Amino acid sequence: MEGVTKARAMKAIILAAGFGTRMGKNIPKPLIRVAGREMIYRTMKILSDYVDEFIVVVGKNGEKIDSFLKDKGFNYKIIRNPTPERGNGYSFYLTKDVSGDKFILVMGDHVYEEEFIKRAVEGEGLIVDREPAYVDLEESTKVRCRNGRVEDIGKKLKEFDCVDTGFFILSKDIYKHAESLVREKEVVELSEIVKKAKIPVTEVSGYFWMDVDTVEDLKKARKFIVRNSIKGAGDGYVAKYLNRRISLRLSELLVDHFTPNQMTFVSFLSGILSSLILFFSVPLAGIVYQISSIIDGCDGEIARASLRKSRIGEYTDSMLDRYVDFIFLVTLAYVSNLSIYFWIVLAFAIFGSVMISYSTEKYKAAFFESAYSAIPSLKYLIGKRDERIFAMMIFCLAGLVKPLIILLAIWTNIRVVATLLIIYKHKLGS
Amino acid sequence: MEGVTKARAMKAIILAAGFGTRMGKNIPKPLIRVAGREMIYRTMKILSDYVDEFIVVVGKNGEKIDSFLKDKGFNYKIIRNPTPERGNGYSFYLTKDVSGDKFILVMGDHVYEEEFIKRAVEGEGLIVDREPAYVDLEESTKVRCRNGRVEDIGKKLKEFDCVDTGFFILSKDIYKHAESLVREKEVVELSEIVKKAKIPVTEVSGYFWMDVDTVEDLKKARKFIVRNSIKGAGDGYVAKYLNRRISLRLSELLVDHFTPNQMTFVSFLSGILSSLILFFSVPLAGIVYQISSIIDGCDGEIARASLRKSRIGEYTDSMLDRYVDFIFLVTLAYVSNLSIYFWIVLAFAIFGSVMISYSTEKYKAAFFESAYSAIPSLKYLIGKRDERIFAMMIFCLAGLVKPLIILLAIWTNIRVVATLLIIYKHKLGS
Repeated sequence: MEGVTKARAMKAIILAAGFGTRMGKNIPKPLIRVAGREMIYRTMKILSDYVDEFIVVVGKNGEKIDSFLKDKGFNYKIIRNPTPERGNGYSFYLTKDVSGDKFILVMGDHVYEEEFIKRAVEGEGLIVDREPAYVDLEESTKVRCRNGRVEDIGKKLKEFDCVDTGFFILSKDIYKHAESLVREKEVVELSEIVKKAKIPVTEVSGYFWMDVDTVEDLKKARKFIVRNSIKGAGDGYVAKYLNRRISLRLSELLVDHFTPNQMTFVSFLSGILSSLILFFSVPLAGIVYQISSIIDGCDGEIARASLRKSRIGEYTDSMLDRYVDFIFLVTLAYVSNLSIYFWIVLAFAIFGSVMISYSTEKYKAAFFESAYSAIPSLKYLIGKRDERIFAMMIFCLAGLVKPLIILLAIWTNIRVVATLLIIYKHKLGS
Repeated sequence: MEGVTKARAMKAIILAAGFGTRMGKNIPKPLIRVAGREMIYRTMKILSDYVDEFIVVVGKNGEKIDSFLKDKGFNYKIIRNPTPERGNGYSFYLTKDVSGDKFILVMGDHVYEEEFIKRAVEGEGLIVDREPAYVDLEESTKVRCRNGRVEDIGKKLKEFDCVDTGFFILSKDIYKHAESLVREKEVVELSEIVKKAKIPVTEVSGYFWMDVDTVEDLKKARKFIVRNSIKGAGDGYVAKYLNRRISLRLSELLVDHFTPNQMTFVSFLSGILSSLILFFSVPLAGIVYQISSIIDGCDGEIARASLRKSRIGEYTDSMLDRYVDFIFLVTLAYVSNLSIYFWIVLAFAIFGSVMISYSTEKYKAAFFESAYSAIPSLKYLIGKRDERIFAMMIFCLAGLVKPLIILLAIWTNIRVVATLLIIYKHKLGS
């Protein structure tokens, strides 16, 4: 998301006065971690592309939120609600002098996927979901609409059209409704203000968002976020149908405990370990190599799920993968007592393996776009790392080292030439 | 220059009614090729970043210019001057109804370097040069200024401050002066209009531009353009102090006759040839390999000099270089009857050689900027292709194949690790 210009930068108000008592945790609910990141951080991080200032309304113990946000790089202002028991409508009312004309209002204890927010910020009024796939309908706030506006809203509504996502695009007018309610009543809920103001509704359906209330909610959210992390990863067939099924489960277990860099390191170590095992058992080494290939998926998954994706992380991972692959091949050849002729073939296999990566990365460096997204037919070329390692495991298990080396020498170099031909066809043929 | 937004797009008038008679060529002067490209094409191509429409004034035989421009992708309009003998002032006068309020006026038979034009389009009035380094003062149009405006102008001026570059940024007002002169006189030169209008002058000194009149001028322009083509190429020490001195001379000879792609192919063939020669003579092969490394500079030089730089060309060149280097190393090892242990070392040399390229290209793919320009200290790491090949030639001449392979295995891999460390220091240390 870097480099996106904030075309219509607004302020965003975040209501963060709640506590996570239902989860048995005595910390502010927005600070509960979902897939390695605090809920409020997730929302603010994704919103940063559209927002120039955050206004965070906190209740008692709000210092915890303030001190959490301090070094996170957001431009934010804290507003303290001394009486959070007066309801979230009252919390919202306290922002009336700082909100600006048009602004975002969002709950600090909800999680939203990036695609949801991307669409929601284009909307007006209350963002609703007609087909909420991830929330418990029983617990959710329902909305009945008329003529594109809120007619009624509440948890106990019997007839309703859609569900309140906790995300709003509002204009300053709404404060006058808030003010009259605040004068009338002690406890004011946001839904009362929304109903009174009959604000417009905008439908953004089918994306992931959740009001995280229970430990089960937390698990459900973590699972979705981790699984969503591989979208557009450009996997080979083995990654898609085998490796990811395992690595995603691993990442779910690990996302709250390990950083992406730690996972890169573990994957690198397991790769090197597989080479060492070659000295004792080629089949076992093949299996460990394949396991390292599975683990290799976790760093990226955890990085994306916990919003810790970094270019230097991606760079490091690629470099280490090249070294692991090279060391494995050389060691395999060494322990197999190959003749000179097989070392020539091995040279082609080593060269071809690196060139597969080089040919696509050089494409990206030259054209500033991913070769796989620019030229989708490249995706069908078999020979990505996950596929090569899986094939290597099979051949190692079968004890077919020489055929493996011949196969790799031919396969990798044919794939490079095929990549070049497809790129030329794409660039020059059109 | 791709992707530059035309912030203040103007029209550009190009006076192209002249003939190249002094060069003994019976073609319109703007169509004379300088360093592989017609002069008018050069100016229009460089101006395309700033101009949305060209107005080309042609004289007799103007169809040649029209039919030349037809398939070049410029948005242009032809204005015919039926009486070019009335002078270039009259040619200019004919554009009065189509020029727009503010516009560029430029001579079709001058060549300008990109940097000159980049600065000139920011100026106002007549662009002058106080230190013209490339033109014959005798032949040039001199300018005397007063209070930042043209006071007098002409070839025979005795006292003058600067020289007319043939490049103007004008506003519509100038046509009234043109009109009164056209009514008074039969022959009107542009300089008369400029003098009468007392237009402002803007100094853009020290860049390359030339009024190409003679065959000597043509050679001088070609030489400058070819030599200027290696600016910012990120050469290693051998390229800088040896290869470029030869390749630039070669490119000067070849730029009018060969395309960059043809040169890429010749360089690839000479690289493969060097590998074949290994079967007969290692020292000779080393020399041919070094020659192929010199020739490898020509495609880029010719591409940039003749404004034919293409990303796919750059991509192809990189891929072929990797194959040439790999084939040479494998063949060298093969003909040298190395033991298994040297083949292991060779594997490291092959891997390290590709990884040098991979580590910098992957950087560019990940960070969308050249590693060398983002992290200047990387430039001092010895081990670029030109340096490796030169060292290989020396070792081949000395018959030291085994030490060479050991050297390459260590050198290339140390360089890769050093590259990574420098990148980390740059990215994480700051």
